[in-house]
Amino acid sequence: MLHPCTPDFLSALGETHPGLLRATAPRDLEEPRGRWQGQAAAVACPRDTAEVAAVVRACAGAGVGVVPLGGGTGLVGGQVMAQGPVPLVLSLERMTALRGAYPSENVLVVEAGMVLADVQAEAAKLRRVFPLSLASEGSARIGGNLAANAGGVNVLRYGNARDLCLGLEAVLPDGSIFHGLKRLRKDNTGYDLRHLLIGSEGTLGVITAASLRLFPEPAARVVALLAVPGPQAALDLLAMAQGQVAGLISAFELIHRMGYDFLAEKLPEIAVPLSPVPEWSVLIELGLPQVVAPEEAMAGLYAQAAEAGLVQDGVIATSEAQAAALWRIRESIPEGNRRIGAVSSHDISLPLSAIPDFIPRAGKALAALGEWRINCFGHLGDGNLHYNVFPVPGRSRADHDHQREAVKTCVHDLVHALGGSVSAEHGVGRLKVGDLERYGDPAKLAAMRAIKAALDPAGIMNPGAVLRG
Amino acid sequence: MLHPCTPDFLSALGETHPGLLRATAPRDLEEPRGRWQGQAAAVACPRDTAEVAAVVRACAGAGVGVVPLGGGTGLVGGQVMAQGPVPLVLSLERMTALRGAYPSENVLVVEAGMVLADVQAEAAKLRRVFPLSLASEGSARIGGNLAANAGGVNVLRYGNARDLCLGLEAVLPDGSIFHGLKRLRKDNTGYDLRHLLIGSEGTLGVITAASLRLFPEPAARVVALLAVPGPQAALDLLAMAQGQVAGLISAFELIHRMGYDFLAEKLPEIAVPLSPVPEWSVLIELGLPQVVAPEEAMAGLYAQAAEAGLVQDGVIATSEAQAAALWRIRESIPEGNRRIGAVSSHDISLPLSAIPDFIPRAGKALAALGEWRINCFGHLGDGNLHYNVFPVPGRSRADHDHQREAVKTCVHDLVHALGGSVSAEHGVGRLKVGDLERYGDPAKLAAMRAIKAALDPAGIMNPGAVLRG
Repeated sequence: MLHPCTPDFLSALGETHPGLLRATAPRDLEEPRGRWQGQAAAVACPRDTAEVAAVVRACAGAGVGVVPLGGGTGLVGGQVMAQGPVPLVLSLERMTALRGAYPSENVLVVEAGMVLADVQAEAAKLRRVFPLSLASEGSARIGGNLAANAGGVNVLRYGNARDLCLGLEAVLPDGSIFHGLKRLRKDNTGYDLRHLLIGSEGTLGVITAASLRLFPEPAARVVALLAVPGPQAALDLLAMAQGQVAGLISAFELIHRMGYDFLAEKLPEIAVPLSPVPEWSVLIELGLPQVVAPEEAMAGLYAQAAEAGLVQDGVIATSEAQAAALWRIRESIPEGNRRIGAVSSHDISLPLSAIPDFIPRAGKALAALGEWRINCFGHLGDGNLHYNVFPVPGRSRADHDHQREAVKTCVHDLVHALGGSVSAEHGVGRLKVGDLERYGDPAKLAAMRAIKAALDPAGIMNPGAVLRG
Repeated sequence: MLHPCTPDFLSALGETHPGLLRATAPRDLEEPRGRWQGQAAAVACPRDTAEVAAVVRACAGAGVGVVPLGGGTGLVGGQVMAQGPVPLVLSLERMTALRGAYPSENVLVVEAGMVLADVQAEAAKLRRVFPLSLASEGSARIGGNLAANAGGVNVLRYGNARDLCLGLEAVLPDGSIFHGLKRLRKDNTGYDLRHLLIGSEGTLGVITAASLRLFPEPAARVVALLAVPGPQAALDLLAMAQGQVAGLISAFELIHRMGYDFLAEKLPEIAVPLSPVPEWSVLIELGLPQVVAPEEAMAGLYAQAAEAGLVQDGVIATSEAQAAALWRIRESIPEGNRRIGAVSSHDISLPLSAIPDFIPRAGKALAALGEWRINCFGHLGDGNLHYNVFPVPGRSRADHDHQREAVKTCVHDLVHALGGSVSAEHGVGRLKVGDLERYGDPAKLAAMRAIKAALDPAGIMNPGAVLRG
């Protein structure tokens, strides 16, 4: 059973580790969408892995909950514990060191508190790419990205966060340290604890450092924004592109006109270079080696796609500035959404071939519940859509508070029926614990509970996240 | 505690599932290197997943050990239980169905008993590639490949078996069925049971089906055999190739002259097209999209590498027949080794930058134990070497039986000291249980034991493999 984190517990911890604790600040207890208000007796800020271990060991001994905190950018409440005995927050903010750089191995070893953008910058210094890239990269910390198995825009080519990690160092729930910072591409020595910790959202331990895969920088990139007749055509275009430049497609993002409409309403400085504004479009980026001429590769794809009726209009960026401007459109869509204010946002994935069926069916099912504006966009190449439901003009999200649950269930039920996932890249956190119980495979859930009980018998690690406490 | 599989147990199982059991054949109890003789009361050959579940449930109830059997090609004894209460062997030989083909998703769903070469052939029918490729692909079954997280020659580009698997169906040690055959690129819904089962070598459950990632067929391949001054030059050549054609290098294999010498001695029909026969060479394959001219790409690399002193001689295949002939050399090396007869074979991986240091140091350390012929070859692009130690001419492996353990420890100690792995792609099985205890991280081992006890409290799944029973 968990106990609250008491002043006595804190003063004992503070005495053995001077300077470890700081007072709780508002930002420690918030999450970006403001759904929960967290609680914490204090924030422990360890300076090294041994201190992380000491904190976890003390909490295990006293039955005190530990909520690991990275950049606090997660969207499912994994970083804020709103209920239950007041926990200790364990922030990785001081553990930001570069432990080692191995350009000839394409490997970087970093501490878990390093901000994702800084990881990218360290890779760039070596003329390499660390391809994990997502909206919050300026404040998200790599340990949190790994704990949540973050996705982002480059998954199609380079994989999810778990695919970018060769090794981990972590503190397990009993305070023991898992020394697994290998820099190996092949290592079949027993159960893959790394992959178990990645995606466990801090419920099985605290990631303290990671060895990360880097990639050679493509010699050139070429970006295009292409109007397509619809989602099926977008998928056919993806298949055509894979046939032509397999392995070199860095991103393939679907954009619906609603996204452009929201930008026009809320961020009018973001210009869309297609007229008329298309109902459906894709942003495609190719990252090409020096043996391929970038504009030619994209122009060849465009010509063949146009002939096949898969592309109706489009712009190919002819400069880095134009490429950045096209990406800025895509990257501004979440901010446009935020300013409109969603009734319910869904981070879903589907088998690719189910997507053209899903989109109209979801629209029809939601229409039975009321009138909405739907912005369906995202990482089409990964089958990962952000399917977000908004009020019509003149109404606010608060007007629909009573329908939020019904809207979510409507979307998630259909996703599940089509073999999809109700959490593609954001994780379960506290937001989707009920969804996991509703849609999760019973044998998997039972195995998860058994593993959690075996590794964390007192239930101290991130209580209430992923699995009900 | 485990109990032997008795005639009574078998007759009860046979009555409820007519036709399930067959008598044990010699091939069920063998492994390729002949180190162990397995034992089995009978072989259960389920026809579907429900029958697998019934077998496992019955064994769990009676405390009878279950040894899962795929193609029986594993090299570490994971498929043969030589000691302890006689188990039931569970063969996947009847579960070979193609469950579904999804070319537009680049996905194939197959049962675990499908032979790897048949998986490759099903992919080829769709004009796709399933890139897992290894010496035993004509008899290895995909379920075993996944249970052992097999590697092979295409890992550099496409990853290990675990990276090629999107979803699993498996029977867990209590007989429950994990329905996880998702066809999704992103799915963050709780602990990744798939990655826990992959690489657990049948000790946490029986894989019954998998959804597999396919890739577009490269438009062309070009293969070259290049003489290099040494391992460091080989690594520099790899880095140069990555700079020129990042993401398009399908294989990068290191070959030592000893491999050619063994072929000349034992398989003289395999001609080596380089004269003089080089001390060190690499076989490199590029798999290129249609926008790249294959011979030009390889010739460009060759010219730049020659100018930098990284390549001294070489042949670039100009036909598919020549490419196949170059690959035949590489693929014949294990057979040459077998005919010579190794004292000790080591499947190791190292951080790439440690390899040029490792090779001479290992040679020096072994020289202190006696005189040897060393064949060091393998998947250099992955840092995975097969470092095999042979008697000098006139001596046999039996002459060195008393030194086998010392040779192995000598090599493994150095690998471990340099941050490497003593099981890169073959797994732990029963051969390396002691190595795992010697070199494994204590916190990881404790977590593995806790997970094993939680999911398989009676210890019925593949007893004695990976973890001591």
